[in-house]
Amino acid sequence: MSALVTRRQLAENLSFSSLAWGAWRLRTSPDVSGTNDIVRIMETALDLGITTFDHADIYGNYGCEDYFGEALATVPHLRNQMEIVTKCDIALVCDARPDNRINHYNTTKPHIIKSVETSLANLRIDHIDTLLIHRPDPLMLADEVADAFNSLQQAGKVRYFGVSNFKPSQFNLLQSRLDQPLVTNQVECSVLELGPVFDGTFDLMQQNRVTPMIWSPLGGARLFKDKDDAVAAHLRPILEEMRVKYDVAGIAEIAIAWLLALPCQPIPVLGTMKPERIQAATQACNITLDRQDWFAILVAAQGHPVP
Amino acid sequence: MSALVTRRQLAENLSFSSLAWGAWRLRTSPDVSGTNDIVRIMETALDLGITTFDHADIYGNYGCEDYFGEALATVPHLRNQMEIVTKCDIALVCDARPDNRINHYNTTKPHIIKSVETSLANLRIDHIDTLLIHRPDPLMLADEVADAFNSLQQAGKVRYFGVSNFKPSQFNLLQSRLDQPLVTNQVECSVLELGPVFDGTFDLMQQNRVTPMIWSPLGGARLFKDKDDAVAAHLRPILEEMRVKYDVAGIAEIAIAWLLALPCQPIPVLGTMKPERIQAATQACNITLDRQDWFAILVAAQGHPVP
Amino acid sequence: MSALVTRRQLAENLSFSSLAWGAWRLRTSPDVSGTNDIVRIMETALDLGITTFDHADIYGNYGCEDYFGEALATVPHLRNQMEIVTKCDIALVCDARPDNRINHYNTTKPHIIKSVETSLANLRIDHIDTLLIHRPDPLMLADEVADAFNSLQQAGKVRYFGVSNFKPSQFNLLQSRLDQPLVTNQVECSVLELGPVFDGTFDLMQQNRVTPMIWSPLGGARLFKDKDDAVAAHLRPILEEMRVKYDVAGIAEIAIAWLLALPCQPIPVLGTMKPERIQAATQACNITLDRQDWFAILVAAQGHPVP
Repeated sequence: MSALVTRRQLAENLSFSSLAWGAWRLRTSPDVSGTNDIVRIMETALDLGITTFDHADIYGNYGCEDYFGEALATVPHLRNQMEIVTKCDIALVCDARPDNRINHYNTTKPHIIKSVETSLANLRIDHIDTLLIHRPDPLMLADEVADAFNSLQQAGKVRYFGVSNFKPSQFNLLQSRLDQPLVTNQVECSVLELGPVFDGTFDLMQQNRVTPMIWSPLGGARLFKDKDDAVAAHLRPILEEMRVKYDVAGIAEIAIAWLLALPCQPIPVLGTMKPERIQAATQACNITLDRQDWFAILVAAQGHPVP
Repeated sequence: MSALVTRRQLAENLSFSSLAWGAWRLRTSPDVSGTNDIVRIMETALDLGITTFDHADIYGNYGCEDYFGEALATVPHLRNQMEIVTKCDIALVCDARPDNRINHYNTTKPHIIKSVETSLANLRIDHIDTLLIHRPDPLMLADEVADAFNSLQQAGKVRYFGVSNFKPSQFNLLQSRLDQPLVTNQVECSVLELGPVFDGTFDLMQQNRVTPMIWSPLGGARLFKDKDDAVAAHLRPILEEMRVKYDVAGIAEIAIAWLLALPCQPIPVLGTMKPERIQAATQACNITLDRQDWFAILVAAQGHPVP
Repeated sequence: MSALVTRRQLAENLSFSSLAWGAWRLRTSPDVSGTNDIVRIMETALDLGITTFDHADIYGNYGCEDYFGEALATVPHLRNQMEIVTKCDIALVCDARPDNRINHYNTTKPHIIKSVETSLANLRIDHIDTLLIHRPDPLMLADEVADAFNSLQQAGKVRYFGVSNFKPSQFNLLQSRLDQPLVTNQVECSVLELGPVFDGTFDLMQQNRVTPMIWSPLGGARLFKDKDDAVAAHLRPILEEMRVKYDVAGIAEIAIAWLLALPCQPIPVLGTMKPERIQAATQACNITLDRQDWFAILVAAQGHPVP
């Protein structure tokens, strides 16, 4: 099994698995009712070679890190088999943060430091492997973010840094102030969301040899369920055709294999809480889509032939 | 009073005030009827610490520089308290330029040199502190502009150079041919015009440590008067709420403070000809908008929450 | 005559004529019925100083290179008076390529190498002067393209390399992996297609001192024939006015002169198969459009005055 999921080298002393697992829906999924379920997810993922666990301070209204950390504390020997990613800078209006009057971003040094310390406490770990700025903040002072990163690294609290949802100009700005390369840019991409393939984001990632992570690699539930989504409806038959041809369990594996074929070598983040779905998804790593099949899916996604 | 308006260092030997005053409406405003009014504007601005005066050859159908210069000649001791900015390259159809058959741009060396010499004569000064290319010219030969800049600098006629309304690719092109950094890019921005905040322009300015100037920082009269402008109508209540909270005279000060909070540290150019309005505007420099208040205004301007 | 068409230096040992001729319609044009017609085109072009001949593997459903090569073999002494450009990476569904099930792109090393070898055989030449990647391939591994280019150059099969239809981010990516500059980016541009003038493409070309080539410099037949094309209808009177003013045979020459005035000094590729039209087109090189006339055409093309 572990032969399916391979490794991506993000920095000299940092590698991620070619698929990651994400905690976004950990507290809201009907498939998770407590610590035992979370430990089972961890063990399933690790057994499959999925060692990269993606978090954010805000997931589950600031509750997922704690939920995960509570479970991790029962299996502490698993920690050093994992790369733990988390994020900061989104500030949500919710009961857990009564001071927030409006959803906003915060890239000040005090907020970043405090967010990391809260994440460490909630996750019951002593360092984060990679911290991401979750959303580009129009008030970002890149020098201040760089200063926060340096402090966190020197304190041993965060090993590496990246961003999420950054456009090329925002990536270049922050990178210009850092002594070390940003190790990732986690962006939305799927057969239903082609943005970073064509807006220059993945061109820059390949140019800088930065490995992107991909959130919502299946386009949420649209691809499977939305009867009114014309693009999804257009895509399902071709994905189904490929499912049969490549002999995998579901069209999700084809949709993930399509992302894995991108030359920037992105790491899709799996959002499922079902161990059997995690296992099935690793089949995607075993598929090398024929180039023409890849373009057939692109053409269905775009709704027109390539020029 | 002068404690409100601070300084921005644009180059080793060039600083601007954090608010500038602009001559755009000098000849068309009902508030200016002659030299006395202009001198009063100069003195009011300088007393408030506003030392940066923004012109263009074309303002007032090529008449504002002369109008201002005529007044300045009556108070010549004020010149060395000022940074005078002017612009070139737009060619307007009007009585003052009978050779112009169509509005166009001209970035040839002869035009730039001649435009500067006319500006110097009209302004009754011996040097311009900063010359801007007013609009990106699709016929711009960057090497020729660089040559014109070098000639003007060596002749002592212009101290520093910048641009206006340049997109990042245009800025990078011209900068690539210059021995010294462009010191500013004067662009339109306001709560009604968010373009440069999100199109990469301000990202590049922060990255290059270039201080933008901002024209139309209040969105013209739309913000105050336009009953049919849905965005303006949406913004007025939140600006009014902030006006009360921050205890300033008008929503204009809140709109300017919102710009001053941007991390590229832009310099808004005030377009008013009323000394009391200039004075009121400096209140904006005393406001540090709470981050959540800043985002509340952004959300009202965009019409949707941040993602 | 040769005084009209000048030279563009693309690299130390590579210059192109300021107009090129393109083989796109060689097999489908009613004006070409065999080798004699093709030789007449070659001789006409060369006599006029048009030495750059633009091909692509796919033109004429993979048939134009062979058609041209067959003719060239009858006049082999003309080869060393020419710069021969060809392209690869588009894979078309057609009888000549039964393995192609869908139109797609292929920038793998084996495909590039094989495509060049087929082009050399079809053209009956031993080297290509400049090879272009025809369309940006979302699956492009820039390192692999660089490797293919190096192999082809070391084998003496291709002298220089460029791209076609590349956006700035794609150009920067590929360039970042090459030891030598890409010598051109062949893009669509005309008074009916202003894209690269304003989307940063030509800014980057001028910045990098790269000479673009231009395909469809007349906007296909739209400019002349399309009664329902509002922009074309708007442009015809002003082009006709300029035709009279500059005393040339047709509005095509004005449309080409408009492109030649661009500061990135592009090379329009003529698509006509009529020797007399090739000759007429060289008149464009003799026209220096007055700056205001250039802007009058731009304004007509855009449908609004410049800001």
